[in-house]
Amino acid sequence: MNLLELVCSTAKDTIEVTNALVMDVAQKKVALYDKSGEQHYDIISAFIKSMRGSDPNAAVYWLARMIEGGEDVKFIARRMLILASEDIGNANPNALLLANATFDAVNKIGHPESRIILSQCAVYLATSPKSNASYMAINEAMAAVNKFGDLPVPLHIRNAPTKLMKNLDYGKGYKYSHSYDNNFSEQEYLPETLSGTAFYDPGNNARENELRNYLKKLWKEKYGY
Amino acid sequence: MNLLELVCSTAKDTIEVTNALVMDVAQKKVALYDKSGEQHYDIISAFIKSMRGSDPNAAVYWLARMIEGGEDVKFIARRMLILASEDIGNANPNALLLANATFDAVNKIGHPESRIILSQCAVYLATSPKSNASYMAINEAMAAVNKFGDLPVPLHIRNAPTKLMKNLDYGKGYKYSHSYDNNFSEQEYLPETLSGTAFYDPGNNARENELRNYLKKLWKEKYGY
Amino acid sequence: MNLLELVCSTAKDTIEVTNALVMDVAQKKVALYDKSGEQHYDIISAFIKSMRGSDPNAAVYWLARMIEGGEDVKFIARRMLILASEDIGNANPNALLLANATFDAVNKIGHPESRIILSQCAVYLATSPKSNASYMAINEAMAAVNKFGDLPVPLHIRNAPTKLMKNLDYGKGYKYSHSYDNNFSEQEYLPETLSGTAFYDPGNNARENELRNYLKKLWKEKYGY
Amino acid sequence: MNLLELVCSTAKDTIEVTNALVMDVAQKKVALYDKSGEQHYDIISAFIKSMRGSDPNAAVYWLARMIEGGEDVKFIARRMLILASEDIGNANPNALLLANATFDAVNKIGHPESRIILSQCAVYLATSPKSNASYMAINEAMAAVNKFGDLPVPLHIRNAPTKLMKNLDYGKGYKYSHSYDNNFSEQEYLPETLSGTAFYDPGNNARENELRNYLKKLWKEKYGY
Repeated sequence: MNLLELVCSTAKDTIEVTNALVMDVAQKKVALYDKSGEQHYDIISAFIKSMRGSDPNAAVYWLARMIEGGEDVKFIARRMLILASEDIGNANPNALLLANATFDAVNKIGHPESRIILSQCAVYLATSPKSNASYMAINEAMAAVNKFGDLPVPLHIRNAPTKLMKNLDYGKGYKYSHSYDNNFSEQEYLPETLSGTAFYDPGNNARENELRNYLKKLWKEKYGY
Repeated sequence: MNLLELVCSTAKDTIEVTNALVMDVAQKKVALYDKSGEQHYDIISAFIKSMRGSDPNAAVYWLARMIEGGEDVKFIARRMLILASEDIGNANPNALLLANATFDAVNKIGHPESRIILSQCAVYLATSPKSNASYMAINEAMAAVNKFGDLPVPLHIRNAPTKLMKNLDYGKGYKYSHSYDNNFSEQEYLPETLSGTAFYDPGNNARENELRNYLKKLWKEKYGY
Repeated sequence: MNLLELVCSTAKDTIEVTNALVMDVAQKKVALYDKSGEQHYDIISAFIKSMRGSDPNAAVYWLARMIEGGEDVKFIARRMLILASEDIGNANPNALLLANATFDAVNKIGHPESRIILSQCAVYLATSPKSNASYMAINEAMAAVNKFGDLPVPLHIRNAPTKLMKNLDYGKGYKYSHSYDNNFSEQEYLPETLSGTAFYDPGNNARENELRNYLKKLWKEKYGY
Repeated sequence: MNLLELVCSTAKDTIEVTNALVMDVAQKKVALYDKSGEQHYDIISAFIKSMRGSDPNAAVYWLARMIEGGEDVKFIARRMLILASEDIGNANPNALLLANATFDAVNKIGHPESRIILSQCAVYLATSPKSNASYMAINEAMAAVNKFGDLPVPLHIRNAPTKLMKNLDYGKGYKYSHSYDNNFSEQEYLPETLSGTAFYDPGNNARENELRNYLKKLWKEKYGY
C-alpha cells in the first residue's frame, strides 16, 4: 500500500498504473519512503546480506545509511549478533563474543561514538570465514521433531532421581564420559528411530574442518563424517 | 504418581499392573507427559548427556525438542553454562566465555532467532575437548573440609592488619611471589594436615597437559604431578 | 572565562593582559583549575593521546592523575572502550573484549582496587598494535551518504516478504552465499553509483594484513585490495 | 578483642594470659571463630595467596572452606576478579575475561552449581603465569603524582576545542599516530619533569617479554626497555 500511495503521488491528475511506472517509482523514488516504511527493511536487508556476502565496504555503507537515518543502535547491534551465529557460527566462534561485546558497548557509549564500534564489528563480521552449519543443524533437527513427534528418550540417558525410576531402568547402563579414556565413550544419544542421523554437517573452513576430523575420530563410522 | 496415572489411563475397565505393562507405558507413551512433568527432566538430561558425550547431532536434536516444547531459553542457556564448566572446564576455558555470551545473547535476542545461538553453542560444547578435573577438585576439597573440619590457616598466609596480629606472627615469613624469579616461590599454602594433597588432577587433553607440565616444573615433587 | 579569571587572580591591583602573561598562567598555574574545569579535559586528552601514541608510561601517569583527582571510573572506562575501537579496532579485536570487560569489572569492583584493572587495560591498549581503519571506513561511508543521498537499494538484495514485492523483482537473482563454494559468491552489494568503492582500507599490521589478503582473494580486482 | 575473648573462654576460674597461651589458642581454636570474625579474613587471605602462589590445590581447598562456610559467591568472585588483574595482568589478559565471565556466571547460576565455575576459575588463575607489572605501574604513577603535584599537560597534547585555546598553542604540533608509518610517531606524552620515566616494567613472562620487545622497537632508547 505504501508503494501504491507513492505511485499515485507521482500523478498530476489521473494516472494509469503500469508495470513500468511502478518499477520506475520503486527504483528511483524509494528514497522518499520514511524510515519506518519499506526502505527501513530494505536497508537492513542489504546490510545483513553485505556482511553475509563478505563485503566490508557495502557493510559499512549500509551501516552509515542506518546511522544517518537515525536507526536505533540496539536494533543494529541485535541484528549483527544474530548474524554472528547464523552466518559465521563455529567457523569463528569469537565473532559471537565480539558481537555480544559490541551490543553491550554501544549501550554504554551511545551516540555518536558507538558508530565506530558498530563499524569495527561490521568489518570484523564481513571479513570472517562463514558457515551456516549450526543454523542448518537446528532447522533440520526441528524438522525431524515435527516429522517424528515426541520420540521417547532412550532409557539409559534418562534422569533417575527416584528408586522407582531406577527400577524401571532409567539411567541403567549410562556410561559417564569422564570414566573413559579421552573423556569419551561411544553410546547412543538419539532415539532409536533417528540413530545415525547427522544434523550437524561441519562447514568447509579451517576451524570446522578440524571439528570434522575430531568427530570422525570419536564417532568413526556412526555419523559418516 | 505421574507414571501410575498414565498406566491407569491405558485401562479399559480393570487393570493388572505388571512390570511389563509399566515398562511398556514408560517407553512408548512417555510422549504424552506434559512439559512440566517427567519428560521435561528426561529431555534436559538427554541434552546434557549428549553434549557431555561429544555428540553434536543428539545435542541439537534434544535442543530442538526443548524449543518445540516451549522451554524457556534462559533455562537452556543456564544448563549449558554449567556444563561448560563441569564437563569442559580448563580443557577449553573459552567454552565458559562462549556459554556466558550465549546466555546474555539469548536474553537480548529472544524467539525465534535465539535457537540459532543455542544451536551454535550446543555444537561448540559437544565438539570441545572434555574434562571434569575442576569439578572433581572442588568436590574432593569439600569432602576434605567435611572430614577434617576447620583446620587452622597457616600463620604465614594469614591476614595481619593489626599490630597484635603481627606480634602473633600472623603473616610472618610470607613470601610475596612477585619478589622471586618467575613470580614464584615454593611455600606451604595448605594446613599441615593436608600438606601435599593434590585435589586438582589435570585432565588428559592438550591444554591441561600443558598445565600439568607447568605445575610439575613449579612444584617439582611436592604434588607428584 | 576560567582562564581569564585565573589570569586576573594573579593581579595585585591593576593588570595588563598580554599574550605572554596568559601563556605563562596557562602553563604554570593550570594546576589550580578545579577538576570540573579545563584541566579535566586536558588530562583526559593527554590520557587518550598517550594510549593512541603507544606510550604505556604516560598512559598510567595520566590515569593516576585522574584517579587522584577523583575522576569517575566509569568515565575513564568508557573512554578506553571507545579508544579500543577507534585506535586499535581490527588490528586487535581482543582489545574491545578487554575494554568491555574492564568497564564491567570496575563497576563491580569500585574504589580503590578498580585502579588496578584500569591500569592493566591502559597498558594493554597502549602496547597493542594500532589501526584507525574501521573508524575511517564509517566516516568515509557517512560522507558518501551525505554526498550522494539515499541511493536505492539494489533490487536483488532487497527484502521480499510479499508477493507484490517478489513481482517487482525484489530479491530476484540474490545469491545466498552459503550455497556456493567457500560460502562466498561475488555479487553487487553497493548501489550502482558507488560500485567498487573501498571504504575500508585494512591497516598495516599483522592481523589486518591477513584480512587484506583474504579480501583480495575473495574480491580479486573489484575493490583493488 | 575477639582473640582475647577466646583466650578467656578457655579459663576454668582465673587465667594468666601468656604469649604461649595466646599463641596456642590462636592456632588451635581458631576454628571456633564465627564466619564474620577473624577467620573469615584469614581464609580469604589464604585463598588469594594460594592463587598468587600458583597452588591450585590450596586454592580449591580454601574455596571449599568458604563455600562450606556459606560465604557469598559474589564476594569470592569479586576477589578473583581483582586478583586476575593484580597478580596476572598482561601476563595473561584472558584471565580478566574469564574472571569477569565467572562473576557474571555465578550470579546467573547460584548455589550449588556455582562452586564448579568458581573452582574452574580458581584453578585457571592459579595455573596462569603471574605478573604484578600493571599493579606496580599505577602505584608508582600515583606516587609520582603525590610527589610532583599537578604538573601541567604538555601543550601539544592538550584539548583545543576553542579558537582561544588554539591561539594559545593548545594541540599545536600534535602528531596523530595514524598519519605515520606503523601508526606510530615518537613524541613527548609526559610532563617535562617526568620525561623518560618508565612506570611500566613488563614482567618476565612470555607475553610481556613480547610487549617489552615491541616497546623497545617503538621507543628505542627513550624508556630504556
